[in-house]
Amino acid sequence: MTSDPYPTHLELGVCDYPEQVPADRWAGYAAAQKALGLRFVRLAEFAWSRLEPRRGEYDWAWLDQAIATSTAAGLKVVLCTPTAAPPAWLIAQHPEILPTGRDGHVKTFGSRRHADFSSSVFREHSRRITRAMAERYGQMEAVVGWQTDNEFGWGDTAQSYSPAALAAFRGWLERRYGTLDALNEAWGNVFWSMEYTDWEQLPLPNRAVAEVNPAHTLDFLRFSSDQVAEFQEEQVAILRELSPGRFVTHNYMGFFGAFDHYRVSGCLDFASWDSYPTGTLQAIHEWKLTGPELAHDFARTGHPDVTAFNHDLYRGMVRRTVTQEQGRSPGFWVMEQQCGQVNWAPSNPLPAAGAVELWTAQAWAHGADAVSYFRWRAATMGQEVLHSGLLRHNETPDRGFAEVAALDPGQYPLGEVSARVALLHDYESLWLYNMQPHTEGLNYWAQTFAYYRALRSLGVDVDIIHADADLSGYAVVVAPALTLITPERARHLETAAQHAKVVFGPRTAFRTASGRTPETGQFGELGELIGASLLNYDSLYAGMTQTVMGNGGAAHPAQHWAESYHTTGAQTLYRYHVGPLGGESAMIRNGNVTVIGAHSTDLIAEVLQATLNETQLGPTRLPEGVRVSRRGGVTLLQNWNAHEVMWQGQTLPPVSSWACRAW
Amino acid sequence: MTSDPYPTHLELGVCDYPEQVPADRWAGYAAAQKALGLRFVRLAEFAWSRLEPRRGEYDWAWLDQAIATSTAAGLKVVLCTPTAAPPAWLIAQHPEILPTGRDGHVKTFGSRRHADFSSSVFREHSRRITRAMAERYGQMEAVVGWQTDNEFGWGDTAQSYSPAALAAFRGWLERRYGTLDALNEAWGNVFWSMEYTDWEQLPLPNRAVAEVNPAHTLDFLRFSSDQVAEFQEEQVAILRELSPGRFVTHNYMGFFGAFDHYRVSGCLDFASWDSYPTGTLQAIHEWKLTGPELAHDFARTGHPDVTAFNHDLYRGMVRRTVTQEQGRSPGFWVMEQQCGQVNWAPSNPLPAAGAVELWTAQAWAHGADAVSYFRWRAATMGQEVLHSGLLRHNETPDRGFAEVAALDPGQYPLGEVSARVALLHDYESLWLYNMQPHTEGLNYWAQTFAYYRALRSLGVDVDIIHADADLSGYAVVVAPALTLITPERARHLETAAQHAKVVFGPRTAFRTASGRTPETGQFGELGELIGASLLNYDSLYAGMTQTVMGNGGAAHPAQHWAESYHTTGAQTLYRYHVGPLGGESAMIRNGNVTVIGAHSTDLIAEVLQATLNETQLGPTRLPEGVRVSRRGGVTLLQNWNAHEVMWQGQTLPPVSSWACRAW
Amino acid sequence: MTSDPYPTHLELGVCDYPEQVPADRWAGYAAAQKALGLRFVRLAEFAWSRLEPRRGEYDWAWLDQAIATSTAAGLKVVLCTPTAAPPAWLIAQHPEILPTGRDGHVKTFGSRRHADFSSSVFREHSRRITRAMAERYGQMEAVVGWQTDNEFGWGDTAQSYSPAALAAFRGWLERRYGTLDALNEAWGNVFWSMEYTDWEQLPLPNRAVAEVNPAHTLDFLRFSSDQVAEFQEEQVAILRELSPGRFVTHNYMGFFGAFDHYRVSGCLDFASWDSYPTGTLQAIHEWKLTGPELAHDFARTGHPDVTAFNHDLYRGMVRRTVTQEQGRSPGFWVMEQQCGQVNWAPSNPLPAAGAVELWTAQAWAHGADAVSYFRWRAATMGQEVLHSGLLRHNETPDRGFAEVAALDPGQYPLGEVSARVALLHDYESLWLYNMQPHTEGLNYWAQTFAYYRALRSLGVDVDIIHADADLSGYAVVVAPALTLITPERARHLETAAQHAKVVFGPRTAFRTASGRTPETGQFGELGELIGASLLNYDSLYAGMTQTVMGNGGAAHPAQHWAESYHTTGAQTLYRYHVGPLGGESAMIRNGNVTVIGAHSTDLIAEVLQATLNETQLGPTRLPEGVRVSRRGGVTLLQNWNAHEVMWQGQTLPPVSSWACRAW
Repeated sequence: MTSDPYPTHLELGVCDYPEQVPADRWAGYAAAQKALGLRFVRLAEFAWSRLEPRRGEYDWAWLDQAIATSTAAGLKVVLCTPTAAPPAWLIAQHPEILPTGRDGHVKTFGSRRHADFSSSVFREHSRRITRAMAERYGQMEAVVGWQTDNEFGWGDTAQSYSPAALAAFRGWLERRYGTLDALNEAWGNVFWSMEYTDWEQLPLPNRAVAEVNPAHTLDFLRFSSDQVAEFQEEQVAILRELSPGRFVTHNYMGFFGAFDHYRVSGCLDFASWDSYPTGTLQAIHEWKLTGPELAHDFARTGHPDVTAFNHDLYRGMVRRTVTQEQGRSPGFWVMEQQCGQVNWAPSNPLPAAGAVELWTAQAWAHGADAVSYFRWRAATMGQEVLHSGLLRHNETPDRGFAEVAALDPGQYPLGEVSARVALLHDYESLWLYNMQPHTEGLNYWAQTFAYYRALRSLGVDVDIIHADADLSGYAVVVAPALTLITPERARHLETAAQHAKVVFGPRTAFRTASGRTPETGQFGELGELIGASLLNYDSLYAGMTQTVMGNGGAAHPAQHWAESYHTTGAQTLYRYHVGPLGGESAMIRNGNVTVIGAHSTDLIAEVLQATLNETQLGPTRLPEGVRVSRRGGVTLLQNWNAHEVMWQGQTLPPVSSWACRAW
Repeated sequence: MTSDPYPTHLELGVCDYPEQVPADRWAGYAAAQKALGLRFVRLAEFAWSRLEPRRGEYDWAWLDQAIATSTAAGLKVVLCTPTAAPPAWLIAQHPEILPTGRDGHVKTFGSRRHADFSSSVFREHSRRITRAMAERYGQMEAVVGWQTDNEFGWGDTAQSYSPAALAAFRGWLERRYGTLDALNEAWGNVFWSMEYTDWEQLPLPNRAVAEVNPAHTLDFLRFSSDQVAEFQEEQVAILRELSPGRFVTHNYMGFFGAFDHYRVSGCLDFASWDSYPTGTLQAIHEWKLTGPELAHDFARTGHPDVTAFNHDLYRGMVRRTVTQEQGRSPGFWVMEQQCGQVNWAPSNPLPAAGAVELWTAQAWAHGADAVSYFRWRAATMGQEVLHSGLLRHNETPDRGFAEVAALDPGQYPLGEVSARVALLHDYESLWLYNMQPHTEGLNYWAQTFAYYRALRSLGVDVDIIHADADLSGYAVVVAPALTLITPERARHLETAAQHAKVVFGPRTAFRTASGRTPETGQFGELGELIGASLLNYDSLYAGMTQTVMGNGGAAHPAQHWAESYHTTGAQTLYRYHVGPLGGESAMIRNGNVTVIGAHSTDLIAEVLQATLNETQLGPTRLPEGVRVSRRGGVTLLQNWNAHEVMWQGQTLPPVSSWACRAW
Repeated sequence: MTSDPYPTHLELGVCDYPEQVPADRWAGYAAAQKALGLRFVRLAEFAWSRLEPRRGEYDWAWLDQAIATSTAAGLKVVLCTPTAAPPAWLIAQHPEILPTGRDGHVKTFGSRRHADFSSSVFREHSRRITRAMAERYGQMEAVVGWQTDNEFGWGDTAQSYSPAALAAFRGWLERRYGTLDALNEAWGNVFWSMEYTDWEQLPLPNRAVAEVNPAHTLDFLRFSSDQVAEFQEEQVAILRELSPGRFVTHNYMGFFGAFDHYRVSGCLDFASWDSYPTGTLQAIHEWKLTGPELAHDFARTGHPDVTAFNHDLYRGMVRRTVTQEQGRSPGFWVMEQQCGQVNWAPSNPLPAAGAVELWTAQAWAHGADAVSYFRWRAATMGQEVLHSGLLRHNETPDRGFAEVAALDPGQYPLGEVSARVALLHDYESLWLYNMQPHTEGLNYWAQTFAYYRALRSLGVDVDIIHADADLSGYAVVVAPALTLITPERARHLETAAQHAKVVFGPRTAFRTASGRTPETGQFGELGELIGASLLNYDSLYAGMTQTVMGNGGAAHPAQHWAESYHTTGAQTLYRYHVGPLGGESAMIRNGNVTVIGAHSTDLIAEVLQATLNETQLGPTRLPEGVRVSRRGGVTLLQNWNAHEVMWQGQTLPPVSSWACRAW
């Protein structure tokens, strides 16, 4: 091991699957990895059938050799618990491990993630293989960290609708509510005669005649998140015991809301995620944010804000300080970084020349301490043969290889991302919003992203953090879609508003912790802070607009959603112009607190710019696709467009980056 | 009770759910309802779990108090049997009550309507709770009427594919056909070797390899309608026995064709329906009748003809005279009337100012004796928290409240709607048409609506009645889509044609009572009356047209469907211009009988206008969205457009109504 | 029997179902058929319930009479085994015959094809009814041939996911691979820990969490094809034994890829197919080949190349010589020929005047020895009442009747189609391509069809043949989408390239026989022949293009897919212009071998034209919709457009044909 244990600059690595190629290639691969400037290799993901070919018969020899080969070449190793792919013999012995889908059908063996988080048998085997690996490799010097499992929830598996899940859900509810009276009251089960008189009556929220009570689904999603969390906690406890001093992380996915990532991440040292910018760009299509033109403009790089949103989200996932030597936040890793074409979008354009550098530098600038390319060599078997790697199927270097070779990690020193703007996020609000979007043009991610994009277009760095996280250091707090407000959260926001500008989006405080609406209506517990209450929300079809007029005369078209307010203490700064809301308040302000009731990208940008101006955060309007990020004294300027952009007298070539201290 | 038992003017009411709010609100709510001008309140819908918290343990106290509170405030009460929401304890004890979906899966508890009409256990409990309620409240003075259950068929539950349904279906078939030979012949089971040799071989018409025999599905839909009818009849018999002198009705849904509403309504005093004009407007999208522009024009009011169609449909559902004091038809109720935003369309625009008056006045003009707003206060729990009420969540009056307050029911005297034009409707024709639409651009409702809309745009009042109803009083009979013709129906139409103009649309008389085609081809039993037979039908893709030319030179583009005829006695008034049907008859006339073979809104309007001219019904071409209706000597003129309209020298403001006797 | 056993000209026939009409019509029908110029009638399809009304009780009387009636009128008879519609009594006795869908649900009785090819019980009854029919009619003089079953795979039944299928699949795999080690290696099961340690662990490839291993699905599709083939072989063996001298064929469907038709056709004398040009035109929509305009232009005829593709496909399905008297290839039949409107497309336009002659003449020109119209009289019962026949429901002659009457089969002498151009096809390549299309704009059929259409637009006749078929007689061999290349296939193509020009399309040689990629990457085994290897494939969203520039300066826009190559021996004739592939090879040539890497209809046409020029095949650029075909010394020129076309000084009227020897 020649690498320093506490790196000072961005580290690069790669995901490799030595078990998928003959062993005579391994040494050559390791040497090439090292020569390419990589510092670590991630191993053993999905390797359960090779580590334990038959129950209780472990085969460590190949992984011993693989690790030794990597170590000999000077690479560090990140190991994965292989539980995302339980082997066929285990399923054959215990078919009750298989998860049940929302449609009531058991999902069978043949892909991956075919396991129910509520299965006690699966849990037992998960602990057993984790312990066996940790005993073998936990204290090996080359092993610097662990990834648990892989991409929790992939393939719609965060929830299972199995008998095991039902039994566990009933127990969870009994522990949460104590009595059925309490549950019936919290859920509002008097509605449609849904009251329960026995815990055994409680069903899973699938396969009902139509939509079930949102409170029912909300608790099932909380329960399911807890199941994922417990599963991970069991593995982490074993790794902490047997592999001290090594980090433990998990590789999440982008814009994935099926479980509460904050809850699940509680036991990790830091979060990681798998970044595939050209695939994730699909989100823009799904949210109908923009026409296909915009998606095509960024077809070969992805959109900068789409990717950065997830960097900032996962940087904020774990917020305690664990690396005391560095005196900074734990950061995050990009555990899988696209370095060529992906295989899972409807169409899969080749990345633009320069995209790998663009993505790697951006990840660093948003706080990544390491970027691990997926994958070393394109797979010649299985479901992903159309996915690229750094090497082609024929083992020649693919385009991304040359881009990685040209990277200089020395440009990218580790350090703090010091954002003064916090964007608040909450998975429970997401669930409630998306259960009942009430308009076909918006959802929680799309609305939240609109605020994030506006902030990034104004040139400021943003922390995306949990709604209940410490807000003491922020000058501006933006809460785009906090539908769910508890009394504690209300007090927390009131405290923040004493020192920070707080900007809320529509639908704020529309739901309580149990998924009902406040008895006092929107804004419920926030009513006094905001100094207003809801009059009406208008849900607009695509093509309909509500015009919002500022007191100064600016007019902005709102789309999809428009709320109006009755003010009790707040001032009205924007009103609706005509239509059913004509003359009513569209944007209000009460001291430090602002509420934007209309979904209008222009209005959002204008209000956020004014807010940033007040706090001396010096916003700069950036052209579409041009973005600035700062980390540890270094500023990164990027042009993600496929065309050159003139900006502040400079010509920015297409798909280009500059990192400099002078900025 | 201060209200008269036989009202002389439109009565307003509201749907309220006192069990969903603390009892200390009830008196205030009742007083406010009375002050608003409401005359009645609908109670106890979905309240089974509160009326019978455990099997056989009834809790009447709260409903006693709720009724007493309403009565004390001077309100009349309409009670509902609560069977649309069987409680959890019942389902737990008898899971066989749960219905089975078309996909073969049992639907679970958690929403509403989770009961199989074919379940004898459910039937038993339905009778039991109905009897218990009727014994308690049946003769209470305040209780003026009953609503059975709620919205039969909601959530795709009019059919169940359960073992109980299968057994009942086989019995029903055996009673209908007597022998399998008769069934095999009626269904034409020689086709594809579908002949049965044992009643136990007969399957439900779901989950076959592909489409089943239309005759099979037709009989299953008839059987399922009978199951719904029997279910309702059982409740009504109990209510007749224990609550004499009170009306019994059911609240149906708009454009809902899953069961034969005439068959199911046979035991009612009058029909009711639930009118949600902005939500029902979706039908226009689904039928592809018009571009999104038209839907947007009426996004905040709904389209006048879409709503009026259902008023006229349900007015004609029960045609016997039961209120002898008034000497007029039984009319209908709007049991749930939208008075703000709904929550169930893809997007849910806020109603325009004036929409509540527009809807209420229109309902009256089309024959409603009462309009009951849904709901008093917006729900703070359950699936419908995003649905509005007269009060907001925070109990302040919402927009609709003020509009109701401004209404003067004295403007709206009860009286007869005296239409001279009948539009014939038949659920069996609907089923056959929609099972095999043969073109992606049309279905039974869309074709029927095109004729209705044309008639309404010509200013005439229309009775929508069953194809076999008494036609003696009509000058014009329009049968837009009577696909199914029995010999009896043919004789009935021949009789009508002796005194009335009869206009048929395409696909008339294409199917017999068992769903086959006539052996003599289209028009089968109507061939002599029409004096023609079918040559060909042309089914056109969107964008294709067939031009129809009148003898006088007018040219009209037909879309989606075009039939041509061989005339044996009829005259040809319009011919196809070019294309495969070029030169062939497109519209024919044989004395009083006209057939329009091409689907062309212009042609339909032109032919109907000429027909009305001949009958001195004085048609007037009205602008889009402007409509005139008459009831009991009063004429209502409305402009449903979001913009003002100049018409006959008058300026009609947007969303406006006038009711006057002078008209 | 007056007809000659070895016809010299095209024979016409009709599909008739005498069991569906009263017997007193039969003689009249037969006389009318004969008078119309028909030579044969197809009988007994789907007639199982009439032939064997109860188990073991055969009723031959009606079919005896039907055959006798046809014979008496001078018609030959083709009989069908009725196994596509097992009767209700058989299913009731053996419900295990029912097939299981991909969703895991058993498909029920009520349509057709409700049988599992893997069911040994079904197989037994299939053999029994076949034997009974063959014993009764096999040596009857009037019976000239047999059709087995009907449209294998219709209704998504080529695969069944039943317990019987699972057991048979496991046995098939064990026979194929011998050991699980071999299977695991072939499938690459180390990927995602999919390795099996017991044959009983192997699942069916449905209902997994997500996509299963393509190798798994590939073998399941092979297995399922074998099941269909064995089913047919069992019937054919009985027919050969009991009905010597009669042909045996099966009527396949157009563009149907669910099983390997070459494998299944091995036991036939020749293949047949069911040609419905206006319905099959839907394929153009599904492939997104062209805008709706093109589809509308050909809405009333279908597109000539869409129909001709299937003619050429099925002509090449059986390639041995069986009719020694004629000394030519066995040809094919159109067993069901649309002669009016179909009932199964979203919309079903009426055929243009002249379409029946257009279709019949084209079928002949592409090698059909017989064309059998579907059906004699439009059905008055069952699922197909909206489908036309030669007679209307009312038994009057429909439009097609007159067109058939006007046909002169004497214009259409039988003879060889002597194509010098072979287009290579392979169902295994189809399966692999369509499992992982990687772009939303292309699939195997669409890509293959693009090459076929280009060839046809250049005026040449094309043989569509299996990739491994004898290529010795061809001057040009086009392999548009041979994804799967085995070593044997590579040697076969190398041999062909010694004498013929060979043109490959994109994705060639991307997969091995087990569905993996070659370890040496694309082109694997063909690398030396082609003299190049893959650099990258670019998968483009709709609206994105890659411009390809020829060395001579021609520029062509590629859509959906663009590959670039590293040349090791080949020359580059076209390069990409800009974008990520800018400057790289788009079309390469190595001696006789050409690879077109970009999907561009213009480029394909240009390259194929140049290739044809080199081989003196004299290509002629034909206008859209105008096509030329040659058979046995006679040339057929057709204009399929709805408008007239000027071509080579001639005016071709819309929807018109000329057959002449002078051409």
